[in-house]
Formats: sequence, structure tokens, C-alpha cells
Amino acid sequence: MSAAEGLRPDHAGLSVGDLEASIAWYRDMLGFDLLRIVDIPEAEKAGRVALLRKGDFVLELFSLASAAALPEERRHPATDLLTQGVKHVAYAVPDIFALMTELKAKGVDVAWDVAVHDGTRCAFVRDNTGNLVEFVERTECGHGTRGSMGRQ
Amino acid sequence: MSAAEGLRPDHAGLSVGDLEASIAWYRDMLGFDLLRIVDIPEAEKAGRVALLRKGDFVLELFSLASAAALPEERRHPATDLLTQGVKHVAYAVPDIFALMTELKAKGVDVAWDVAVHDGTRCAFVRDNTGNLVEFVERTECGHGTRGSMGRQ
Repeated sequence: MSAAEGLRPDHAGLSVGDLEASIAWYRDMLGFDLLRIVDIPEAEKAGRVALLRKGDFVLELFSLASAAALPEERRHPATDLLTQGVKHVAYAVPDIFALMTELKAKGVDVAWDVAVHDGTRCAFVRDNTGNLVEFVERTECGHGTRGSMGRQ
Repeated sequence: MSAAEGLRPDHAGLSVGDLEASIAWYRDMLGFDLLRIVDIPEAEKAGRVALLRKGDFVLELFSLASAAALPEERRHPATDLLTQGVKHVAYAVPDIFALMTELKAKGVDVAWDVAVHDGTRCAFVRDNTGNLVEFVERTECGHGTRGSMGRQ
């Protein structure tokens, strides 16, 4: 048996601008709970990292004093794909219209409103740093048999 | 109840260089199965996207003809954090030493070998594009109560 047999998603790491504002964004918009904040003392990487949890998944929000701003092209799903790299994390929700209605009422920055791509309803918003966050609607119990295609 | 109540990780989107090589890398190294490949016909974004699955989690590997190479600073966990954005996705495994031994035997590109950060064993490798992939060891049944800190 391969040692990768039980592999499952654990967390995503994001570099953000305003840590307190980002903690509030992921709490108020998506319901992530703050676990703790840890100092990063090392030289050029001096800053803090906040660990947030939602169910079994954790977000690591890194806030480094010397970090450069999010590149402009990363704020849009289409242009973001034009540079190789880790692009976005998508979350499954049971009702994407209900979620987007709720998020819009809270003032969310919509990058791409709900549409059907490859047979799946999906949407993109930006967090308070400008990072893309995708949602896909999964109404079935067992999901994961198809991706949303990220709205090419 | 919030519409974000049932939110869970669904997939991650990556932009890669050589699609066939990337499909093989995620299959051979981590056990992801190819679901299908879809053409992306649109102009500057012309290319293909491969959907890979492991358990409940999907990877979208985008291969666009016009995509720029992965920025050099994104190949290293520490320098990657110095630009805001979505940085890495981490996977939990039951035995990180067994996994890394197996991956090294298969010729994996190690970015940061196993060490303990914030009480958790973690490691970084690079996929065939150079994208950072993190592993964290979770021996308990219910995980996600702490992140790995991404090795600041």
C-alpha cells in the first residue's frame, strides 16, 4: 500500500495584507473560526500567521510586514491562469445562490457571479486581500467526481 | 443558519506547464486518478484542463499555451510568502516519513524535508511544474485543529 493512501486536504496557505481584517473576513463571510495567532520572528519574514478552522479544513493566513501586494492579474480568474502556479481553492456548498445572496448582503467583492460551467454552478469572489475564492454547488451527497473548470 | 454552514474544500486549481507530465506526477506520486480532460477553446486562454480526483478532493490542472512560467520565488516556501496570494495546499497523511521515503525513491523534488513546526511534522515538495505541495502528519482521527505553520 502506498503511503499516500490516506492523503486528504488539510489546509491552504495564503499571504494576506491586513491580518485582523482577513480573520474577520473569513469569519463573517465563510464561518471560519480563529484557532490562534503565532508570531513569526525571522528577519525578512517577520510577521504573524493566523490559523482558522472550518470543519476539518484549516486556513493559514500569513501576514508578513515585507510582503508585496497581490499581483493585479491574480484578482481575475481568467488572467490568474496565465501564470503557472497554485491559483485558487474552491469550496463546495449545498446552495450557491443562497450563499451568494448572503455574501452580497455582507458586501462581498464578486469576481464572477454564478454561472454554469461544465455542468456545475460556480462563482468567484475576492477576499479582503483580493485573493480569489471559488464556490461550487454540490447537491449530491458524495461529491468530487467533477471539478468546476474554474470558469475558463 | 448561514448558507456557508456546509462549506467544505472541493478542489484546488493549478496552472501547470506540461499537462501530461503533471497528470503522471499527481498519479504516480500522490495517487490522484484522472477523471477527464476538457478543451478550453477561448483565444488567449486556449488550452486544456485536466480534472484529477483523490477521495473527495479534486485538482484542476490548467495548461494554457500562453501561460508564463512559475515565478522563481514561488518554488521556495519562505520566498513564496513574500508576495500576497494563494500560496500552497497541504495534504494530511498518517505517516509523513513513510510518504517522503516513498516519494524520494520515485525521484521527488524536495523543497523542505520533514521537520517539526508548531508541534506538527511537515514537509514541502515541488510538483513537476515547481508548484509547492505541503504534507503534514496527522495521526489522530479528527484532524484540522491546528495548521502546520507552513515552515516560516
